Amino acid sequence: MSKLVPHEENLTARYAERAARMVPSEIRSLFAVASRPEIVSLAGGMPNLSALPMEMMADVVQKLILENGQEALQYGSGQGHPRLREQICEMMALEGIRAKSDDVVITTGSQAALDLITRIFVDPGDVILVEAPSYVGALGVFAQYQSQVVHIAMDDKGLIPAALTEAITKVRAAGGKIKFLYCIPNFQNPSGVTMPASRRTEILDICREAEIFVVEDNPYGLLGFDGPVPNAMRAEDHENVIYLGSFSKTIVPGLRVGWALVPQGVKEKLIIANESSVLCPSNFAQLTISSYLAHEPWRDQIASFCSLYKERRDAMLESLDAHFPASATWTKPKGGFYVWVTLPPEIDTKVLVPRAIAAKVAYVPGTAFYADGFGSWQMRLSYCHPTPERIRKGVAALGNVVKEEIARRGGETPKAVR
Amino acid sequence: MSKLVPHEENLTARYAERAARMVPSEIRSLFAVASRPEIVSLAGGMPNLSALPMEMMADVVQKLILENGQEALQYGSGQGHPRLREQICEMMALEGIRAKSDDVVITTGSQAALDLITRIFVDPGDVILVEAPSYVGALGVFAQYQSQVVHIAMDDKGLIPAALTEAITKVRAAGGKIKFLYCIPNFQNPSGVTMPASRRTEILDICREAEIFVVEDNPYGLLGFDGPVPNAMRAEDHENVIYLGSFSKTIVPGLRVGWALVPQGVKEKLIIANESSVLCPSNFAQLTISSYLAHEPWRDQIASFCSLYKERRDAMLESLDAHFPASATWTKPKGGFYVWVTLPPEIDTKVLVPRAIAAKVAYVPGTAFYADGFGSWQMRLSYCHPTPERIRKGVAALGNVVKEEIARRGGETPKAVR
Repeated sequence: MSKLVPHEENLTARYAERAARMVPSEIRSLFAVASRPEIVSLAGGMPNLSALPMEMMADVVQKLILENGQEALQYGSGQGHPRLREQICEMMALEGIRAKSDDVVITTGSQAALDLITRIFVDPGDVILVEAPSYVGALGVFAQYQSQVVHIAMDDKGLIPAALTEAITKVRAAGGKIKFLYCIPNFQNPSGVTMPASRRTEILDICREAEIFVVEDNPYGLLGFDGPVPNAMRAEDHENVIYLGSFSKTIVPGLRVGWALVPQGVKEKLIIANESSVLCPSNFAQLTISSYLAHEPWRDQIASFCSLYKERRDAMLESLDAHFPASATWTKPKGGFYVWVTLPPEIDTKVLVPRAIAAKVAYVPGTAFYADGFGSWQMRLSYCHPTPERIRKGVAALGNVVKEEIARRGGETPKAVR
Repeated sequence: MSKLVPHEENLTARYAERAARMVPSEIRSLFAVASRPEIVSLAGGMPNLSALPMEMMADVVQKLILENGQEALQYGSGQGHPRLREQICEMMALEGIRAKSDDVVITTGSQAALDLITRIFVDPGDVILVEAPSYVGALGVFAQYQSQVVHIAMDDKGLIPAALTEAITKVRAAGGKIKFLYCIPNFQNPSGVTMPASRRTEILDICREAEIFVVEDNPYGLLGFDGPVPNAMRAEDHENVIYLGSFSKTIVPGLRVGWALVPQGVKEKLIIANESSVLCPSNFAQLTISSYLAHEPWRDQIASFCSLYKERRDAMLESLDAHFPASATWTKPKGGFYVWVTLPPEIDTKVLVPRAIAAKVAYVPGTAFYADGFGSWQMRLSYCHPTPERIRKGVAALGNVVKEEIARRGGETPKAVR
């Protein structure tokens, strides 16, 4: 045996440059704690599967293997199964999208689609425009491909068009190469905000004019509680929008099936990248979803999910009103999973985490959703998973932690102390 | 609507540099033709699922959802399910590997593990050493990460140590940065060759001395037909080997479950890369395999697969003896899926493909398995999928095509013409 065994200290020298940006998200370490049963977790984004009829799912998979096991358990195509791609088009039609199944590429969750789209377009140093704040999992992908993330300010209607225009001008003046705008127009993660139709048109016009793709990530679009949701951005522009969809929130996440609907020129590259990454998406997972869509009342099931989440959203907003200080503000989501809370700027939500955990409640600090360290006085609260009762308990406990911190800093006096 | 709509012609300018290397493999276009029922396909590497008891698989998945649906259908961990990681360690013990489940990272097939390992280690221009010939799906990954592939000559015992040493010296003298050696020691794809134990030790010593990781890809290790298979390379060196395993050939490919067993220092990066790429591997697929391993006679099932493949291997070798010209040589695999045929060097196996298809047989031309255009007079024949009878028919037809081509070029006269 030679002595030249590589030890951890000399591993770093062997890594690719991008490995320096493979660092754990702020969310990850938190989740280990948040999953303890005594903690009310307002941190995770796990869909609530309590409304899912397990017997029906069990029948679907059993039948699938008995009737079509040779196909379901075999390798499939790199683009994904043709039948499921047809069904995906029918589903997308609910949001105004007219698409051919030939333009759909199925991926291992929409996360994989985002990873591969970034692989196709982004060289180190390229700029990606994202909402401020944005999805932590997207920021992780963009970091691994060594991009520069530029955040665009939002208001209660989502991305601000003037801020987008300004950012494009500024980045280009500085010689930056913008590859795409990444956005979540419906019930945004983490803000909960939805872009109205007119705002979508404005954003699309700006991007088309500037020759920047829009990557529209839409996992929550069918989970609206309060009336109609605007059409997808892809419905309005089929040439300049790459659309990402997912079954994780409308059916189940454990099968890992998502998709990208892409302009023809991008499709070939995406299939090749998909093959290189996983050979093919799982036939079994795809055909399970395909059978479910073909034979089960999936629209009713989504309606059940919606009423389950609405009840929880209501519980959270009521509790915030009752227990959070007047100096805090928060968004009022009309669907999806998240409420975004802004505290007085002197409060550091990362510092508060251990105190919240001690009070048996968890949340995600705002900085997790920015690539640039912003958001230290913000937090994301998820209402998707706990029961309404637990949500009330958790928000009340968190409200006390926040009010105590404000009091400690000489601001507003917590109610309990008055 | 602005006129500045991006059309295909200006897409290229937007792509990342690596996209230029996202090109279809030579295998892909062939597979569309090879899958026609009238063609005997000796091209694909699809495992043969005819020996798999579908009723048992159907019961496994049905029970899994009824008893543990809330977990099986939910998001899981980025490292993979702890129970399955334990079972993977038991399985690897069959090949002499002693490992902790904490060092296993489960991925979407072992293809994803290879993709992510490359992501962690390889910068553009870095060198990866591979066997000559090597797995086409690995070459695709290495191309996407813009590496330089250097092929190392093999003999009937696999990689030639002297050739490896020489390549390392040469690459380094030219300033090249070698990141790892990628090899398939058992029943190699495409050559069918197996490295004996002593050869493994030599290769390991060279790599350790040179501070080069070995990436040992072992999807076929348990599919040996002719007596014992040497221990895995990882069994001998736990610090310098990254081991890739897969259930695609021992259970089924349609679930897309594989794994990497990595040195501790690499593990954290791999989990983060896995999360970025797919959030988490499918809980449902992992728990299906876990239940199967826990409750079904999986060793017997692998034995059934082995006797199924042995019968086919025998049919292919007998037919090659009977129908191929004396100027051709081929490997004699003791397991796995493939025979590698070398024809006289003036024969171009890519040119022969349409004639083979006309004779109702398909194979993969040798050049697909080299990054440098070598192998034009070689071909890979798979015996895994067709029936023995169809294999005999296909090899006979292909033998005639080959002999006709040799005759056309003034070489050996085909028997049919004699």
